[in-house]
Amino acid sequence: MLNRPSKRYEALAEEIEASIRAGTLQPGDRLPSVRQTAASRGVHPSTVFQAYYRLEARGLVRAHARSGYYVAAATPPAELDRASEPDGDSIEVDVGERVFAILKATMRRDVVPLGSAFPSPLLFPLARLARTMAATVQKLDPRASVDHLQQGNADLRRQIALRYLADGMHVDADDLVVTNGAMEALHLSLAAVTRPGDAVVVESPTFYAALQALEQRGLRAIEVATHPREGIELGALAEALERQRPAACWLMTNFQNPLGGLMPEAKKRELVALLARHDTPLIEDDVYAELHFDPRRPLPAKAYDEHGLVLHCSSFSKCLAPGYRIGWVAPGRWRQAVARLKLSTTLTASTPAETALAAYLEHGGYDRHLRKLRQQLASQQQAMLAAIARHFPAATRATRPDGGYFLWLELPPGIDAMDLHRRALALSISVAPGPIFSSRAEFSHHLRLNYGHPWDARFEEAMAALGRLAATIRAA
Amino acid sequence: MLNRPSKRYEALAEEIEASIRAGTLQPGDRLPSVRQTAASRGVHPSTVFQAYYRLEARGLVRAHARSGYYVAAATPPAELDRASEPDGDSIEVDVGERVFAILKATMRRDVVPLGSAFPSPLLFPLARLARTMAATVQKLDPRASVDHLQQGNADLRRQIALRYLADGMHVDADDLVVTNGAMEALHLSLAAVTRPGDAVVVESPTFYAALQALEQRGLRAIEVATHPREGIELGALAEALERQRPAACWLMTNFQNPLGGLMPEAKKRELVALLARHDTPLIEDDVYAELHFDPRRPLPAKAYDEHGLVLHCSSFSKCLAPGYRIGWVAPGRWRQAVARLKLSTTLTASTPAETALAAYLEHGGYDRHLRKLRQQLASQQQAMLAAIARHFPAATRATRPDGGYFLWLELPPGIDAMDLHRRALALSISVAPGPIFSSRAEFSHHLRLNYGHPWDARFEEAMAALGRLAATIRAA
Repeated sequence: MLNRPSKRYEALAEEIEASIRAGTLQPGDRLPSVRQTAASRGVHPSTVFQAYYRLEARGLVRAHARSGYYVAAATPPAELDRASEPDGDSIEVDVGERVFAILKATMRRDVVPLGSAFPSPLLFPLARLARTMAATVQKLDPRASVDHLQQGNADLRRQIALRYLADGMHVDADDLVVTNGAMEALHLSLAAVTRPGDAVVVESPTFYAALQALEQRGLRAIEVATHPREGIELGALAEALERQRPAACWLMTNFQNPLGGLMPEAKKRELVALLARHDTPLIEDDVYAELHFDPRRPLPAKAYDEHGLVLHCSSFSKCLAPGYRIGWVAPGRWRQAVARLKLSTTLTASTPAETALAAYLEHGGYDRHLRKLRQQLASQQQAMLAAIARHFPAATRATRPDGGYFLWLELPPGIDAMDLHRRALALSISVAPGPIFSSRAEFSHHLRLNYGHPWDARFEEAMAALGRLAATIRAA
Repeated sequence: MLNRPSKRYEALAEEIEASIRAGTLQPGDRLPSVRQTAASRGVHPSTVFQAYYRLEARGLVRAHARSGYYVAAATPPAELDRASEPDGDSIEVDVGERVFAILKATMRRDVVPLGSAFPSPLLFPLARLARTMAATVQKLDPRASVDHLQQGNADLRRQIALRYLADGMHVDADDLVVTNGAMEALHLSLAAVTRPGDAVVVESPTFYAALQALEQRGLRAIEVATHPREGIELGALAEALERQRPAACWLMTNFQNPLGGLMPEAKKRELVALLARHDTPLIEDDVYAELHFDPRRPLPAKAYDEHGLVLHCSSFSKCLAPGYRIGWVAPGRWRQAVARLKLSTTLTASTPAETALAAYLEHGGYDRHLRKLRQQLASQQQAMLAAIARHFPAATRATRPDGGYFLWLELPPGIDAMDLHRRALALSISVAPGPIFSSRAEFSHHLRLNYGHPWDARFEEAMAALGRLAATIRAA
């Protein structure tokens, strides 16, 4: 997966995809056998296998047992693979009104939540968690409520440290501060490394909550070009660091919201080295890493940090227990600053939730749950890509992330995403329109769609309705 | 209790107290009978009863059945009743290091927690709460975790609104935002009504967390003269409003931390009118109101607010469930601003904790628990006052609050509170030294002591040890 475009199998897969999109290969056509292709291209059969497997993962071909690979009936939309091109200057952030109005709309229960930021809570082991909490809360040491105030529940921190260890990273329980979700971890990190008036690098497009956080703290945003598959462009970042001397970067290296991009490991290593040369801290928002579709959990940039410059923020809200509001930060050299900010703002996270999660992580089968969740999300992504192909204008491009639960769509230029959002809401369908992901309200014809819900007729119909709306707006 | 010094019974009680302190009345002496005193003073017997009752409540006399009132064996310390005299200018706040070092020390489990900010968790119905949570978490609607994001759990807000109603106040469930404890409510309120560089009025002395909050947001503090029994001096406040145009006031009108003062109702009404004339918002920290020793819950200043100028902040952390981290704010005209700040920083409080507290408030016997808790705290206050009288230098003065769980002590001037704090900690006893309650490190010979723990030999011995340390320091 690393340096994917340069891999042989990836080049082969892209070539075949092009033939399918051009109509050279039609739905139902059988691909040449692995042996034939290996011979004709002069590559190893395993390269061909990998290419076919990749095409299958993208929904372009289907395998039939003992008979080979066939072009799928519906061709998914073309992949969006161009980096964004922001102008690179820093800008005062003023997204509040725009974002809040849209968020509020997406919270209505009667709305099909394609614009939601959360996966369906039905995908989480809430009953199991509830039993764990019922048991642990009744054994809670009364002193626990006024203890551990400094950095959060010690058992929970140990369980989190064990997960870092399993990924080959060395983060001790003492290096962690437990927070009310990742959002608080990110805010505390920002407060620890910036002062009002500073500039902070974000991706383009970036998660709107990052923009809101900058706005609240009187910080300026530098939006830097970002590639939908591989994350922020290091050349553009180096230029921004050089010219604008930002106080920090706030980035998502794993399954970035909204693009879904996964920064390759070598690039993460380069990123950390670049930041170290400028002594610039990285606030790493890593809440989606556990939702990887490939077998291995991708490492965060934090894994390559030798100078304590990365404040690594994550939580259980996107993969286990949204309402418990438990997140954490490994703040590197800002550990004491973050712990103190925490102590004097919200003091501590909710003790019963901390204790229940510590027990669940120890005994609850978290990895089993995650394996199931990843499969569900991967298959829901396929369903959504197929629905886009069926219902959306032909020129629509979509990302094809290897994890998480968001697709980022580029619609044909005439289709105004804010208009689409308003019309969709009138039909009780929410979408996240592109402009909320930029301090300059760019991405006017882009959408973020959430595939984190079990796919059913309601979602299929909502996608069809969105497709019709897009066609109507385009024709107008 | 209102306008206390002007009441007849209070005047009589103060006169008798003076006789006891002067030695005219000695330990063991019998007071004149109620009938005799009523006749000799020309007052109604009920006035004398009230005066004797008041003296008894202060630990100065003891009633013996069918035989009358006797001067108590140990005379409690003189009451501290002079207002503070800060210089009134605004000042940049820089208390961080000082406060954090002390807080950290007080969190050690092996320490006698006289410096703690919390009452003993053993005074709370944690087992009952845990059973409630065990039951509610297992019935939790999965959607609850991504619902109610805007202002917090609707059932909980309704229960809180019902408590306002029972106190005769009109605060709807829709007027409330649930937070991670009162501390977050206060921070969000501060963020909603100030900008960096603004000045904010606080009491003198004030709760150190208020100073930390100002420091974090780059705000200046104006410390205003405050009376230990009746709260901030309105004359001094009027002058500060006039001359310095603060962006807000952050005050505690009920059982102020650290003084324990209770602002009389009429004064609260005047306070709100004064602020309305200057259109200055009041952030009202009201976390101790439920811990009143007199029968009626004192109303907050919010009760007199007709212009939505008061942001009323409270929580369950000091009277029911510290570790659950559930507080709230009734932000008046800043409701939307506070809700949005909340949504973009910590999103929501912990759902299982919200739901459990909603159910407990509805069915759990909260008022029964509170009645018991108030009695315990009142009797622990008596025990601590008696211990001060027994062990501390004779010139020590102490507040005598009608609620809460803090005493504020003025030691003889030569005794440095920071020195006492360090020496006490070496003996595993924590105290909260006066200088952390002021941005100018004033109150050099003052202490805040916590009587919120069941009184036992450990506390008695700790008080004796503190008394010996004070004597040593004074002699040096």
